[in-house]
Amino acid sequence: MSNRQTEGLEQTSQRGPDGSLRHLITLEGLSREELTDLLDLSQFYVRQPGELPARDQSLAGHTVANLFFEPSTRTRVSFELAARRLGADVVNLDMHSSSRVKGETVLDTIYTLQAMHADVLVMRDAEPGLPTFVAGHVQPHVSILNAGEAHLSHPTQGLLDALTIRQHKGEFGNLSVLLVGDLAHSRVARSAWHALSALGTGEVRIAGPEHLLPAANEFPGAVRFTDLNKAMKGADVIMGLRIQTERMSAAHIPDNAAYCREFGITAERLKLAKPDAIVMHPGPMNRGVEITGDVADGPQSVIQAQVTNGVAVRMAVLATIVRNAQAQRKYS
Amino acid sequence: MSNRQTEGLEQTSQRGPDGSLRHLITLEGLSREELTDLLDLSQFYVRQPGELPARDQSLAGHTVANLFFEPSTRTRVSFELAARRLGADVVNLDMHSSSRVKGETVLDTIYTLQAMHADVLVMRDAEPGLPTFVAGHVQPHVSILNAGEAHLSHPTQGLLDALTIRQHKGEFGNLSVLLVGDLAHSRVARSAWHALSALGTGEVRIAGPEHLLPAANEFPGAVRFTDLNKAMKGADVIMGLRIQTERMSAAHIPDNAAYCREFGITAERLKLAKPDAIVMHPGPMNRGVEITGDVADGPQSVIQAQVTNGVAVRMAVLATIVRNAQAQRKYS
Amino acid sequence: MSNRQTEGLEQTSQRGPDGSLRHLITLEGLSREELTDLLDLSQFYVRQPGELPARDQSLAGHTVANLFFEPSTRTRVSFELAARRLGADVVNLDMHSSSRVKGETVLDTIYTLQAMHADVLVMRDAEPGLPTFVAGHVQPHVSILNAGEAHLSHPTQGLLDALTIRQHKGEFGNLSVLLVGDLAHSRVARSAWHALSALGTGEVRIAGPEHLLPAANEFPGAVRFTDLNKAMKGADVIMGLRIQTERMSAAHIPDNAAYCREFGITAERLKLAKPDAIVMHPGPMNRGVEITGDVADGPQSVIQAQVTNGVAVRMAVLATIVRNAQAQRKYS
Repeated sequence: MSNRQTEGLEQTSQRGPDGSLRHLITLEGLSREELTDLLDLSQFYVRQPGELPARDQSLAGHTVANLFFEPSTRTRVSFELAARRLGADVVNLDMHSSSRVKGETVLDTIYTLQAMHADVLVMRDAEPGLPTFVAGHVQPHVSILNAGEAHLSHPTQGLLDALTIRQHKGEFGNLSVLLVGDLAHSRVARSAWHALSALGTGEVRIAGPEHLLPAANEFPGAVRFTDLNKAMKGADVIMGLRIQTERMSAAHIPDNAAYCREFGITAERLKLAKPDAIVMHPGPMNRGVEITGDVADGPQSVIQAQVTNGVAVRMAVLATIVRNAQAQRKYS
Repeated sequence: MSNRQTEGLEQTSQRGPDGSLRHLITLEGLSREELTDLLDLSQFYVRQPGELPARDQSLAGHTVANLFFEPSTRTRVSFELAARRLGADVVNLDMHSSSRVKGETVLDTIYTLQAMHADVLVMRDAEPGLPTFVAGHVQPHVSILNAGEAHLSHPTQGLLDALTIRQHKGEFGNLSVLLVGDLAHSRVARSAWHALSALGTGEVRIAGPEHLLPAANEFPGAVRFTDLNKAMKGADVIMGLRIQTERMSAAHIPDNAAYCREFGITAERLKLAKPDAIVMHPGPMNRGVEITGDVADGPQSVIQAQVTNGVAVRMAVLATIVRNAQAQRKYS
Repeated sequence: MSNRQTEGLEQTSQRGPDGSLRHLITLEGLSREELTDLLDLSQFYVRQPGELPARDQSLAGHTVANLFFEPSTRTRVSFELAARRLGADVVNLDMHSSSRVKGETVLDTIYTLQAMHADVLVMRDAEPGLPTFVAGHVQPHVSILNAGEAHLSHPTQGLLDALTIRQHKGEFGNLSVLLVGDLAHSRVARSAWHALSALGTGEVRIAGPEHLLPAANEFPGAVRFTDLNKAMKGADVIMGLRIQTERMSAAHIPDNAAYCREFGITAERLKLAKPDAIVMHPGPMNRGVEITGDVADGPQSVIQAQVTNGVAVRMAVLATIVRNAQAQRKYS
């Protein structure tokens, strides 16, 4: 697992000439202040269950296009509702067709949407590189929002995870946060790592079977465990990760029950963490594999709060990148 | 054909603590007054062909999610337009994928939509039980609207049929209403029966081949016929039903021409009914099977009025259950 | 390639009793004044890249239904955005299912949408005749908008092509416009021809391999070439056409490289045209076949302007046909 792709990515590629975020492709390189600003705006958009969701007209007159080359109904709906609640027009493009050919053909689709006055292109892709490639070709008023890129990046997920932790635990400096499971294939873990590092998290632990841990040069400074029981001790936050069988070769797909015995977040194992530890999962869950149902639905679970925060974070990011890109609009 | 599933359904499961309808899963158990209130509000939303449709902001700020596990473009569009014309945001989820696993996985999807502040979940499913199961798990401000459940229930269809009859015939007490065809597999017939019974319909007749009639304990009080010519005599309303081959074993699928000869609603047969009898069908029609084209398009057909009424009824039901659920919202 | 289908089409079939355009099915028969009015209104809706798109409430309270029997994400999105930016509700119907049966079944779908108060039905179909057939059956307040019909007609494409030429070249009377490629299967070429003829274009040339040129009785007055180099000389506008392999028998599908050598719009060949000639293509492009990438992305290309104009033209057409159909609405 190399990060060759991210090494090639200039940190300024998602920034406009004034240095502000015009795209959001990765959390890598965002400052603590930038992340805190995004979390603050996200918190502004959070509403409790039973309340009506937040709404405003930040994106009135604007158009958001969802291009999901890798299908995900949950995430697409989250982005769609975030954009609509800001007053945008939203179009969904079905990019799942097998006839897609990468490269110039995708670029022609992008140019077409741009010429139709789309302002934000929300993209998800199973392979690395497309958001950065596309961001290098669009006009100054168009923003790319990465909704999941291979195993590399899922920035709105990293933000919603950080927001959820902040809501429940306050300052990051004193926290021990544990990421458990299939880190090798997890864009969720990489974006969480970028956010947690920049926010000055006290300690980040990673735990999983040896072959699902990331390469040694990734997650620098994180404490590595292959024994989950040891990793749980004293943790404030336990973040389960989805087993990404779709990104594994057949030989590496674990037996579900055996995996759960060794690396599942179970009620018994949760007792090893701090008594007020919170349990997170990005969904969709493989119940009985990386997490048991009683923990997922139990009092320490904040999984539903993550989903609610997801819409709020996407509203904050959309409002921010459109505002920043507008500064570069040339009104005639 | 047992009604085991409905027997297990507490009548109060679709009602809030104050007894008002918070969900709409079945018409069974609704009082004449409740049905009349829903029909009156539906009538308020009816517009004639050529007029612009009714619109208001009853659902402004609210979110309606369509979850059709059984595909139906017509019904999905009817619910989508009803919700939009009340000012709601609408999201359509593609649930047709073969990868769906029932039970907890559906519940995780429901919890996700609920956490995104969806207010109404419109559900259609080929198997029984899902709407009631889900209604038992959602938060107090979330409403379930059954858009078709196996052979059991299709409450908005029952309401639109009652509304159409009321528009053309006035009082129900003097009417003879005939349901013709595949009653065994028909949720349309069951919901019509619930509505017609509660509204005090003078006489309900059911007609069809013996093996497509319902079990003896269903439709209590209805007059059963296996000779359609006899059943037609003196009927005020003839409601054709779609042959549901998708719910039949191969041995039970009838020959189309033979079926039409014995049980089709033909122009000649229609002469046996009252001269001002109206002809209804829930669509989509198998023309030349359960109904001939000349009758479907003829002067006694009210099939297009049923479609128009369908949008109005869905607006009335959405407005009602959201209002009732709002009474249980806890504003912070 | 006969135009038997268009011969059978009464020119007045897309007009209301007052002679105004109530549907838009073909550009054939539109007067120069009518076309100029549509182009003027389209121009009113054009915005430059970086500007917010034009918006108004011309279609407020109205409903537009997209029925694409032949899938096309680009064109569907263009119509969807045009309708939304005029304030309409838009519903997309998935008509790609193999279960569709033509004729009465389509008509039942149309009647259903009409009864739900749909005002405009945007239709695309791979076979000829459906828009005219449907237009003959809908109520007076319903408009049919042809979004692509077999090889016969694509009127909004013809309008956007004319608008793009007018923006760059002004008057049509002095222009030499060259259509290159697979004219036999091209509805784009036929609609362009109708527009260019009525607008008094100085000269229209058509060029392509003999077996892809139209029948001798089509495009009367156009100058035919089988040598593209000769055809390019002195041209003001070069309009490339997509090779429609999906409409060819296997024996007629050309070898890409060989086709490009003889009939591709290449940088070298473009030098034969006037120095300020513009290059157009309806998209999606087969780069390296009918056009090379350097020309498509080069300074003489107006392909992105065509896309922008496409949304503006669709707004103008929607606003026009709804206004004309409203004159026939019977308010109760």
